[in-house]
Amino acid sequence: MRISVPNQHMQERLADLDVIVWDWDAPPPDGPPLDLAVRPYVLSGGFEHLDAERVRVVQTQSLGYDDAIGNVPEGIVWCNAVGVHEGPTAEIAMALVLASQRGVDENARAMPDGRWERHWHPGLLGARVLLLGYGGIGTELESRLSGFGVEIVRVARTAREGIHGTDELPDLLPDADVVVVAVPYGPATHHLVDDVFLSAMRDGALLVNVARGKVADTEAIVRHTASGHVRFAADVLDPEPLPADHPLWTTPGVLITPHVGGAVTTMHDRVEAMVREQVRRLQVGEPLMNVVDVSG
Amino acid sequence: MRISVPNQHMQERLADLDVIVWDWDAPPPDGPPLDLAVRPYVLSGGFEHLDAERVRVVQTQSLGYDDAIGNVPEGIVWCNAVGVHEGPTAEIAMALVLASQRGVDENARAMPDGRWERHWHPGLLGARVLLLGYGGIGTELESRLSGFGVEIVRVARTAREGIHGTDELPDLLPDADVVVVAVPYGPATHHLVDDVFLSAMRDGALLVNVARGKVADTEAIVRHTASGHVRFAADVLDPEPLPADHPLWTTPGVLITPHVGGAVTTMHDRVEAMVREQVRRLQVGEPLMNVVDVSG
Repeated sequence: MRISVPNQHMQERLADLDVIVWDWDAPPPDGPPLDLAVRPYVLSGGFEHLDAERVRVVQTQSLGYDDAIGNVPEGIVWCNAVGVHEGPTAEIAMALVLASQRGVDENARAMPDGRWERHWHPGLLGARVLLLGYGGIGTELESRLSGFGVEIVRVARTAREGIHGTDELPDLLPDADVVVVAVPYGPATHHLVDDVFLSAMRDGALLVNVARGKVADTEAIVRHTASGHVRFAADVLDPEPLPADHPLWTTPGVLITPHVGGAVTTMHDRVEAMVREQVRRLQVGEPLMNVVDVSG
Repeated sequence: MRISVPNQHMQERLADLDVIVWDWDAPPPDGPPLDLAVRPYVLSGGFEHLDAERVRVVQTQSLGYDDAIGNVPEGIVWCNAVGVHEGPTAEIAMALVLASQRGVDENARAMPDGRWERHWHPGLLGARVLLLGYGGIGTELESRLSGFGVEIVRVARTAREGIHGTDELPDLLPDADVVVVAVPYGPATHHLVDDVFLSAMRDGALLVNVARGKVADTEAIVRHTASGHVRFAADVLDPEPLPADHPLWTTPGVLITPHVGGAVTTMHDRVEAMVREQVRRLQVGEPLMNVVDVSG
């Protein structure tokens, strides 16, 4: 079994598996094909070094795989990182919701000047929260929201028991105090949050994006926040990094974290456990976990 | 029935009860004694205008009543605001915990300069959280924490089923990643968080105070945060307001909100409901809710 990991840190954790390091900046190391190649955590591209003769299975460290679709040579099995990031992503969503609803971001910015300035904020207790996307992140979000005394409205692509369909959004958006977007990104969700969506939201409501930046039309967000119509908090932006002179950085009612949904130190434990399980399955010939279709 | 409220806003809400305005900056208005006087929300003192001949019952808008003990003339019934602030106070505690554990405060401060700077943070998932104080705020905190995948350790003054006693703190503190303090303030809890307490905490752990500022020894907090031993997030400080040149404002790993635990716009609804219920009880001769002992 020949396994590559993207850095020495992971190599040390998996030393007993006798793994080699391949960082995807160059073609795979010489020798027999890799049975499993763990992709670097944050990487755009790297596909040019992939070759089905030299790499059999890729295990990523991300949940989203929209960047891989159509870019992976046929014959390579692609696995995403289900179970690694859903909790921490729901957690950053809650951090954004609470900071915005309680003004913690304003207070943090007042600290260097020693300003003790008390303001009233809407809070979360008693709010109606619309969860848009009810997959892994959405369900983790619901668990975390459930103790906060809120009313939760679930929305997913297809309506089912207890869950509204996205076609009902025009009726649901005007009544939501907080809207959290956690849908997968793809053609169906590109610019799902657009001018029409934002126009339907209540004055002063909060939009939170922890899905992918391109799920929202950034220009529409700029307009609806600059006018004071809605507030906005996001861990994902379009583009990333957001340029230093972008208006969203300084618009009142906007809170931005730099795509750190999964960047918690406990991530490495979950990735290690996932890689060990995939290796075990390869060794005994069991089907791999979390194989996704990245054909274009 | 003669009832006073501290401002015109509350007078308008309770117009049907024919209430008068008394803001406690001067003696009560002339006329018969007040059957119920609602105290201003944030007020230090005001006791000099109280007289048992002119005020029979005081309804405060706060949960804590340490400032009133020994300062209220005998014969005046004192009621605190159980049910108004516990949820929002637990909510600000969660906002502080999540902002600190995920670095949202640092990100907020980087925004005016347009800095997209990704850092790794400990997160909350998988952490051991010690709840110190298991009254109204502590139980609301536990509800909110329960969906975050944490281990909760409950500590109260007296040990009971499922709850450790404060005498066990020396054994419990070294194993906690996050310690949230939500005890009532009084002689027994004055400077409960002192040098010995902080020294027992794990390197890099987070201390959160949403109780009262004087529950912690500020000088000890300054030393243990300046050295980088612990992080600190608080909505209550000693003194308040924290002076503009206080070192805590600029110590890395410190997050301060200016005593806004209860300052959410939905508070007015809860206060209104509470006052209406007390008035109803006075009218029909039922015992009042939330009478507390403020004798010195």
